[in-house]
Amino acid sequence: MINKQLLKPKSIVIIGASNDTKKPGGNMLKNIISGSFKGELSVVNPKEEKVQGIKSYSEVKEISQTELAILAIPAKYCAGTIKILAEEKNTKAFIIISAGFGEAGETGKQLEQEIAQTVEGVGGCLIGPNCIGVITENYKGVFTAPVPKFNPQGCDLISGSGATAVFIMEAGMALGVSFANVFSVGNGAQTSVEDILEYMDNHFNLETDPLIKLLYLETISNPKKLLKHASSLIKKGAKIAAIKAGSTAEGSRAATSHTGAIASSDMTVRALFNKAGIVYCSSREELLSVASIFNYKKLEGKNIAIITHAGGSAVMLADELSKGGLKVPEISGPDAEKLKSFLYPGSSVSNPIDFLATGTAEQLGIIIDYCEHKFENIDAMAVVFGSPGLFDVENVYNVLSVKLEICKKPIFPVLPSVVNAQREIQSFLRKGHINFPDEVVLGKALSQVFNTPEPISEEISLPKIDIEKIRSIIENASEGYLNAAQTEKLLDAAGIPRVIEIVENSKEAIHSKMGSMDFPVVMKVVGPLHKSDAKGVVLNITSKEEVSETFDLLMKIDSATAVMVQPQLAGLELFVGVTKEPGFNHTILCGLGGIFIEVLNDVAAGLSPISKDEAQKMVQSLRGYKLIQGARGQEGVDENQFVEIIQRLSALVEAAPEITEMDLNPLIGTQRAITAVDARVRIG
Amino acid sequence: MINKQLLKPKSIVIIGASNDTKKPGGNMLKNIISGSFKGELSVVNPKEEKVQGIKSYSEVKEISQTELAILAIPAKYCAGTIKILAEEKNTKAFIIISAGFGEAGETGKQLEQEIAQTVEGVGGCLIGPNCIGVITENYKGVFTAPVPKFNPQGCDLISGSGATAVFIMEAGMALGVSFANVFSVGNGAQTSVEDILEYMDNHFNLETDPLIKLLYLETISNPKKLLKHASSLIKKGAKIAAIKAGSTAEGSRAATSHTGAIASSDMTVRALFNKAGIVYCSSREELLSVASIFNYKKLEGKNIAIITHAGGSAVMLADELSKGGLKVPEISGPDAEKLKSFLYPGSSVSNPIDFLATGTAEQLGIIIDYCEHKFENIDAMAVVFGSPGLFDVENVYNVLSVKLEICKKPIFPVLPSVVNAQREIQSFLRKGHINFPDEVVLGKALSQVFNTPEPISEEISLPKIDIEKIRSIIENASEGYLNAAQTEKLLDAAGIPRVIEIVENSKEAIHSKMGSMDFPVVMKVVGPLHKSDAKGVVLNITSKEEVSETFDLLMKIDSATAVMVQPQLAGLELFVGVTKEPGFNHTILCGLGGIFIEVLNDVAAGLSPISKDEAQKMVQSLRGYKLIQGARGQEGVDENQFVEIIQRLSALVEAAPEITEMDLNPLIGTQRAITAVDARVRIG
Repeated sequence: MINKQLLKPKSIVIIGASNDTKKPGGNMLKNIISGSFKGELSVVNPKEEKVQGIKSYSEVKEISQTELAILAIPAKYCAGTIKILAEEKNTKAFIIISAGFGEAGETGKQLEQEIAQTVEGVGGCLIGPNCIGVITENYKGVFTAPVPKFNPQGCDLISGSGATAVFIMEAGMALGVSFANVFSVGNGAQTSVEDILEYMDNHFNLETDPLIKLLYLETISNPKKLLKHASSLIKKGAKIAAIKAGSTAEGSRAATSHTGAIASSDMTVRALFNKAGIVYCSSREELLSVASIFNYKKLEGKNIAIITHAGGSAVMLADELSKGGLKVPEISGPDAEKLKSFLYPGSSVSNPIDFLATGTAEQLGIIIDYCEHKFENIDAMAVVFGSPGLFDVENVYNVLSVKLEICKKPIFPVLPSVVNAQREIQSFLRKGHINFPDEVVLGKALSQVFNTPEPISEEISLPKIDIEKIRSIIENASEGYLNAAQTEKLLDAAGIPRVIEIVENSKEAIHSKMGSMDFPVVMKVVGPLHKSDAKGVVLNITSKEEVSETFDLLMKIDSATAVMVQPQLAGLELFVGVTKEPGFNHTILCGLGGIFIEVLNDVAAGLSPISKDEAQKMVQSLRGYKLIQGARGQEGVDENQFVEIIQRLSALVEAAPEITEMDLNPLIGTQRAITAVDARVRIG
Repeated sequence: MINKQLLKPKSIVIIGASNDTKKPGGNMLKNIISGSFKGELSVVNPKEEKVQGIKSYSEVKEISQTELAILAIPAKYCAGTIKILAEEKNTKAFIIISAGFGEAGETGKQLEQEIAQTVEGVGGCLIGPNCIGVITENYKGVFTAPVPKFNPQGCDLISGSGATAVFIMEAGMALGVSFANVFSVGNGAQTSVEDILEYMDNHFNLETDPLIKLLYLETISNPKKLLKHASSLIKKGAKIAAIKAGSTAEGSRAATSHTGAIASSDMTVRALFNKAGIVYCSSREELLSVASIFNYKKLEGKNIAIITHAGGSAVMLADELSKGGLKVPEISGPDAEKLKSFLYPGSSVSNPIDFLATGTAEQLGIIIDYCEHKFENIDAMAVVFGSPGLFDVENVYNVLSVKLEICKKPIFPVLPSVVNAQREIQSFLRKGHINFPDEVVLGKALSQVFNTPEPISEEISLPKIDIEKIRSIIENASEGYLNAAQTEKLLDAAGIPRVIEIVENSKEAIHSKMGSMDFPVVMKVVGPLHKSDAKGVVLNITSKEEVSETFDLLMKIDSATAVMVQPQLAGLELFVGVTKEPGFNHTILCGLGGIFIEVLNDVAAGLSPISKDEAQKMVQSLRGYKLIQGARGQEGVDENQFVEIIQRLSALVEAAPEITEMDLNPLIGTQRAITAVDARVRIG
């Protein structure tokens, strides 16, 4: 549990501090000293009297009461040391930077669990082991460089990898991204990335807290906590972007080999991020570009004006924005003509607004004023302005800087002349702005942020279903797949329409129950799990005679116990399903059936509980959505009913979390009805 | 036409040179002087006796014979000046940097054409107008900064946008990318990007020429020239990457507004790049990352070893490589165990090879040796090594530098510590290497290069078709759509199997011709263009009576002239087609029919003539390819025959280039046959 002793310690002891600043313990001490920590600082090093000018104790027993201890000693000594600190020195916060714990094998794993228990026992906080440490406003508890200047308007960075945290800070500093609190959680023996978010959420202050949170995750040990606190923080005004590395099988193997983490599927992680409102990133560069976007005012609409003196960059940016679903709308009309009169002949104002290589700072100011005040179809501006090397762009960047502060519409600066205008760009960054050196990288990040949904409200109203009946079916079922009767009852209790089915093991019973059922009908073998593989599904049966013949054929199949008859429905094949990954809520899937799922893998996923809005977005995100709307002269499907079935499925798994797998495939949909034709439910 | 006077002028005159180096003419002169041009240099400026120490003539008539003239005077004076130079001064090369020509309107367009004619008249070369100039080994004829040091092993850069060329050079220099010849073609009144490639191709010398060519294009004015010389250069050993900006409708509008260029579709541009072997890029960053890959040895296989001391970067890189179709194969066996014995405990060699934060330069050397010599399933290495700030990484980078030169397998360095290890990275770059600061950017570029096909051989053998008959059909056809009889004959002459069709305008004739045709049949109205819209297609007709009834119905449709009867084939719906864009060879399209083309837009494109290999790749690149192979219990399609039909279509348009549009949709395919059921051919 994060506590004030970790964040604002009155006293710190470094166990294993050294005079050699190339050693972790020495470098840690150096950073804390040069970071002007204002509290009491002591060190333990049996070989020295003073370390870097600080009094050194020869053993931990000798030190005074200390709030935070940082351990830079071999793994095997940590447990004993922490026991003394916790029990005798009233220490409530611990950072272990030493490696050789869980990442090294089972013995190390046990060691770190033992330490975590000691810390838990005194209600303390443990960061690490195997981490680079912590930076807060109060102390710079890391043994690496660079140590970025603490900027309360900067980004909080919480990372599951120490080196990656360093590389993110380095790459960020080059762009002008600044940092506030940095937490490297290492093996996370007690404190995970999620725990830190929880603390930030529970103690959030919109006025004083850093609003941008950047996460690097290799494992999500507590998805529900991540979802809860990330979405809560975002609703309160924070902005969160995260990398979840290990999104592919190969990456996942790489992550597992180096952290022993459990892999979650990329689909489910994306569903979680979407629900929380976290912007999904795949690289340090993307994370920092998104952080840079976060640094500017929020984009409230799709329409971007590109303002430039360099046509090529404008074209590439327009391409990228358009690919990302944003727009570069044409600007015209009397105001556009008026704007043009302020620019040099040959300028274009139709968007991109190209004011030529000779364009001036004053002209840039006027263009921005027009975009801000006159052009109502413009939501934001991207200004691309480099230096051909002929004139000083400082005055241009000064205008830009003032407009960035004044304008209500966001303005994104692309200053590509990283060599020519290096000095002017640096001076621009020192004013607290961030530069996007590549226009396409900006365009990509801007779409990424814009396309991330708002976090989902906690109050999701799901359709009413018969929970009592569902519980009774589930509680009477054994593990594994439900049988046909149980499945039917479950669907009925969940209010999911299903096809009429007759299941009998004699021809006579089938004929008598079929009564006036319309032909054609479908017949399926009951017994074998994979009916299609066993050729146990026969379509287009159009007469009583065919029913009899088919019955005989199906009953000959291995492990056949009975035969099922259903009316053969015509319409669009749909699919809904459920998967469950450890720690996550159920993942609800939807798609079109048939080739869309089997060949094209065109499936949308959301985390249960699914709101109506989420279900709609899932449906609309399908590549085959046009068919649901009705295309190629074929009527589509009642989209509202499809959305309702998705929500009913979500309600069902909320009522019956024992369901680990479920497929309704296919459902047959028309404008009038959607009916489940085949269903499979597994209880875990 | 590029000539030696442009590339290696013995004498240069700058018309409009100035003492003010903030003016284009002044800056140009300054760059040429400081670029130590070794020939004769003179200037024309009526107001000065000397400009920057160089003798100034008051008018162009006064100067001696001069090979290259650079004009930095107002547009209106250029034509007259060039006339004098061309006719009296034996000048054969001209660079006009002045703006105010074609980009400014019709008058400017005429002016530049007039100038181009004058230059053509003396067999000269004209670069520009409206460009930043030219850099060669011999002179630095640009008025911008930075002027990169000429490196004969660096990249040639040919750009349709001057500012973009500058921004590409600036971004490149930061990564360690160096440059050789730079051409800014501006409005390209005489010389386009394609013309420069043509010259480079015709004069190519593998030993002395820069091998990497980077292109920025906003228009492709001569696609055939681009294809011919790009593929020829690549076959000779060059490597080419290009941005074609304006790939979307919005980008294309942006490009058109600033250059007046004709837009080509992104699909056709990609088809051209694929055929030529040009790596398609969408941003300056991508272009430079690809250039950086080009700088290293060629990747000959898919299998990458990731060598790192920082797990996070390795995971993200593994993810990206895997997404791009490359592999990070597991490494195991006795050699892996032996390697492990050289590393610190806790290291992992299973790939990623993680030799821990404490890993040393010697260990890196050993790891690379093992990957180079022992691990046969490894084709290349990516080494991620930053600096946590504790120790000097210079010795690590020295080892890396030596291995880069020695090893036969390519090694790609990711040095992420752009702050901590700035000095060491700079020293690494000075040795001529290039750094990839972000591992994911490397991964993306590596896949981009690897997935670009080799340029296509010029000798494409197409199936034999009846060219004589085809020519006779085409020559007797009028513009517009061919009629049914012409279309049938054309398909027959091209050897494309088509369904048997009976077209008659009386019921009796139909019945008599149908003879023993199998039911079901399809009947279609003849006359209206869009048969489906007019409800003019009736399926599943199973008896003679139905044929009669349907005939009556169809003949009642507006503009119906006859009725067509075909056997109704069962199988997979396929599609092939042709489009034609100005200047390009025909684009041949293929796909699955039905929803795949109408809803999913799942279409592959290639430029005619299509080789067998290209046709196969087109088919295999379809998202629905699994259905062609056979999926979901359904037999697939004879892939060889599909490939042959694509090639026959290509042969047809080669024989009949008048075809501007053609659709065979659907073809019905099985394992035994593929048959065109409906066809539409338009002659332009």
